Amino acid sequence: MAERYAVRLVVAYDGTDFCGWQRQPGVRTVQGVLEEAIATMSGSPAKTRGVSRTDSGVHAYDQRVAFDTERPIGEYGWQQGLNQHLPDDVRVRAVRFDEPGYDPRHHARGKLYRYLTQVGYARDPLLRHRACYLGASHRTPGPRVRPETIDAWLDVDAMRVAARALTGTHDFGAFQASNDERTDRVRTVHRIDVMPDFSGRTDVLAIEVEGDGFLKNMVRILAGTLLDVGRRHRPPTDIDKLLADRDRREAGPTAPAAGLYLVRVDLHESAG
Amino acid sequence: MAERYAVRLVVAYDGTDFCGWQRQPGVRTVQGVLEEAIATMSGSPAKTRGVSRTDSGVHAYDQRVAFDTERPIGEYGWQQGLNQHLPDDVRVRAVRFDEPGYDPRHHARGKLYRYLTQVGYARDPLLRHRACYLGASHRTPGPRVRPETIDAWLDVDAMRVAARALTGTHDFGAFQASNDERTDRVRTVHRIDVMPDFSGRTDVLAIEVEGDGFLKNMVRILAGTLLDVGRRHRPPTDIDKLLADRDRREAGPTAPAAGLYLVRVDLHESAG
Repeated sequence: MAERYAVRLVVAYDGTDFCGWQRQPGVRTVQGVLEEAIATMSGSPAKTRGVSRTDSGVHAYDQRVAFDTERPIGEYGWQQGLNQHLPDDVRVRAVRFDEPGYDPRHHARGKLYRYLTQVGYARDPLLRHRACYLGASHRTPGPRVRPETIDAWLDVDAMRVAARALTGTHDFGAFQASNDERTDRVRTVHRIDVMPDFSGRTDVLAIEVEGDGFLKNMVRILAGTLLDVGRRHRPPTDIDKLLADRDRREAGPTAPAAGLYLVRVDLHESAG
Repeated sequence: MAERYAVRLVVAYDGTDFCGWQRQPGVRTVQGVLEEAIATMSGSPAKTRGVSRTDSGVHAYDQRVAFDTERPIGEYGWQQGLNQHLPDDVRVRAVRFDEPGYDPRHHARGKLYRYLTQVGYARDPLLRHRACYLGASHRTPGPRVRPETIDAWLDVDAMRVAARALTGTHDFGAFQASNDERTDRVRTVHRIDVMPDFSGRTDVLAIEVEGDGFLKNMVRILAGTLLDVGRRHRPPTDIDKLLADRDRREAGPTAPAAGLYLVRVDLHESAG
């Protein structure tokens, strides 16, 4: 009899044309197209377990996925085969086998997200689905007055002060989507870096957030609040009150999904 | 009576969904959508003059365009108005006025192109229309053996030797599309840089080519030839013979359009 085992995948995708990770009837999701490709290869329906339920439009370099199968195919065979059956906006970057039932959610000890924002008088068409845009349309129309560099549009120092106040173990209730029903809202944010000059460009800002776990929309609400601070719509000293009050309505807007990337997932590699 | 003047534009676009720059009946081109937007704003048909006829799929950050008009609209008004009428894969980055009849082609003294290549066992879905991909499908199938870094897939030093041999003033007949009818094929390439680690990634290679002018497909044939050298399909010493023989059939393939970017156009700003 064939032996059952888990196939672990590292999956990357361009989230633009997906209604997020999670399978839902009638819409195109990453989990949906992945389970279809697995079913085609294995000849039987597949159920995958993903580490992060990314929203519609969010991108991923390091989504972790696992499923059980009995089909005797090698690791490289699964990777090449799945990539042949997948649409070109999803790719399997790596494959590893594990014990049946392996679920990456039970092994996640941290995640790194990146949020990109572009500033200037015109949106870069090549970043239109890849970064949030802060530009002239958010301002009173008028002639050009500022150079197209992050520092001319955003107070990066104030954002860094706010980022420091957010770092650490807090109840992030103010930074949780109002329809997220989880009541344990304590999370540890290890690091928030606000970095201009991403990839040698002076008009793109990267916010990197690393933590042990995240509430629904948490990174996007953190980014929206930091960008409010950057635009001087609120002072960085607001953060302490936000963390104390835990009221979603006091925090900034949920920043657009297109700027968000799941960059890295850290797993405990011991058995579990 | 209204005075006639030239509007000069700096235009960026994502070339993925365009059949190149040049207006052609029945297909979507950058010049076509731009002239439509100008006609909508000015109320009369527009004829634009572009500095570079980029191919289908090629991207641009710095296409230079000019057209004549009598409509009394300010520079900032043109920019905001055109961006409101343009589809979101084209943006006007800057506007400046000049003498009527101004043609950027008569003022170009140099251009900088960038060509991106991604290596590895799976194509990055976020770069599928943004870079050429060299990976496992170009090799005998087999298990993973190489790290996903440029140096493990391409001999960058050999590419640099070839790049040096290509730099300078030469007859680039071997690097000209066979349907390009120009017979003066002497061009000066000021610089070719082969740079791994573009934007902090170890799996993306950038080839930057700066020159006074380019023949049809020249940068893509240069890139295709350099990538052949990088894959050790030919030695870098081939370049001298290619330049001497001026035979298109001896050079490498035309690298895919999706990896090419028009990054910068240098203009003589004196009257002309």
